[in-house]
Amino acid sequence: MSAGKLIGVGVGPGDPELLTLKAMRALGEADVVAHFAKAGNESHSRKIAARHLRPGVTEVALLYPVTTELPKCSAGYRDAIREFYDGAARTIAAHLDAGKTVAVISEGDPMFYGSYMHLHVRLAGHFAAEIVPGVTGMSGCWSAAGLPIAQGDDVFCVLPATLPEGELARRLAEADAAVVMKVGRHLPKLRRALGRSGRLDRAVYVERGTMTDARMIPLAEKTDDCAPYFAVVLVPGWEGRS
Amino acid sequence: MSAGKLIGVGVGPGDPELLTLKAMRALGEADVVAHFAKAGNESHSRKIAARHLRPGVTEVALLYPVTTELPKCSAGYRDAIREFYDGAARTIAAHLDAGKTVAVISEGDPMFYGSYMHLHVRLAGHFAAEIVPGVTGMSGCWSAAGLPIAQGDDVFCVLPATLPEGELARRLAEADAAVVMKVGRHLPKLRRALGRSGRLDRAVYVERGTMTDARMIPLAEKTDDCAPYFAVVLVPGWEGRS
Repeated sequence: MSAGKLIGVGVGPGDPELLTLKAMRALGEADVVAHFAKAGNESHSRKIAARHLRPGVTEVALLYPVTTELPKCSAGYRDAIREFYDGAARTIAAHLDAGKTVAVISEGDPMFYGSYMHLHVRLAGHFAAEIVPGVTGMSGCWSAAGLPIAQGDDVFCVLPATLPEGELARRLAEADAAVVMKVGRHLPKLRRALGRSGRLDRAVYVERGTMTDARMIPLAEKTDDCAPYFAVVLVPGWEGRS
Repeated sequence: MSAGKLIGVGVGPGDPELLTLKAMRALGEADVVAHFAKAGNESHSRKIAARHLRPGVTEVALLYPVTTELPKCSAGYRDAIREFYDGAARTIAAHLDAGKTVAVISEGDPMFYGSYMHLHVRLAGHFAAEIVPGVTGMSGCWSAAGLPIAQGDDVFCVLPATLPEGELARRLAEADAAVVMKVGRHLPKLRRALGRSGRLDRAVYVERGTMTDARMIPLAEKTDDCAPYFAVVLVPGWEGRS
């Protein structure tokens, strides 16, 4: 029996219609469909892809370990996460060894900040692997906001809000266009960094960007500092537009 | 008669299967389908979308003016391009005024370095407008290359190869992950900038990323400096992967 095939399948930012035809085909042809989720939560990527799963297809839920008692920067946390991905890769490898085609569904684009990447680096050297790219979460956000983000020779940057304030301010000042991710509790700091970089007036705050209950307002008009972890702030470029 | 609706439809990076279900529906429902092309050339975006156009749908080709006699930085060039987009917007507006739904097809993602943006900023204030995001060309490239591009708290940047060498080197050194666009004749300079920033060994050169005749090799192994304008160089991040 020949070994199977691993496919990282991007299912886009949330709207099930933003799945590609190729993703739909890959899901329909897979022997096994795997997805990541927090224990006790429905997998968001599975929900997006649900209508395209073959009835009776073998599903594998890869459940993140509960690590709330460990600080994220600790060796204990890193070890727990590494062991989780090692175990997940062994689970998928067993199906591949059995000759199965395994589709791992991934929100957005699999190779762009996606959990699938942890499986890819462990398995792609040993099994045939293919990537089906997807629409990223950030594309979903700026499209829902109707916001042209970058044009021509613009420098575009994706920045995590976890950066120190001074570094955020410097990088925001140097980019023509930016997307700031993982806003959450970093919003007050991000606001100050945008102010220091002169970009606050252009910044747009987006929550649940491609859901039906999306919320987007100019950040300068947002009167509180409440933000979920997955909120993003968009800073459009193309200042010299014509 | 109520005015029509403008839809910017991303058709993805090249493979017709990388169109989304939403793009397919938008193309099937549109009264008018418009696309940009160079005079005398087939529109690349139209070719990607061809199988999804309704037979007999009204098509509008928006043909870029031939401006080879004008330097790109000249006022004459800028005026010619602005007049072209103004005229294109008037053409689309006439269909919208007649109550038509007009889909403007756009390679990749419409709001990410797309020509559609020039129509959007001229028309979205006057007509209902919707964006269907698409898979970007760069996602198509790193997926075809099987290259995990960014993870966790990586800073990711898109840089035009047109930047001066020193600025390219500095920005490459400061980004965890980068995509360099518009490589073409700038390849020797980009090579030097990658060397100065210590990133040459990680750089991957990609030509026709999502075509069947794609070519991708480690840049350090590319022995010549021939590169088409649309070639890209990928510098993957996630250096501390685990």
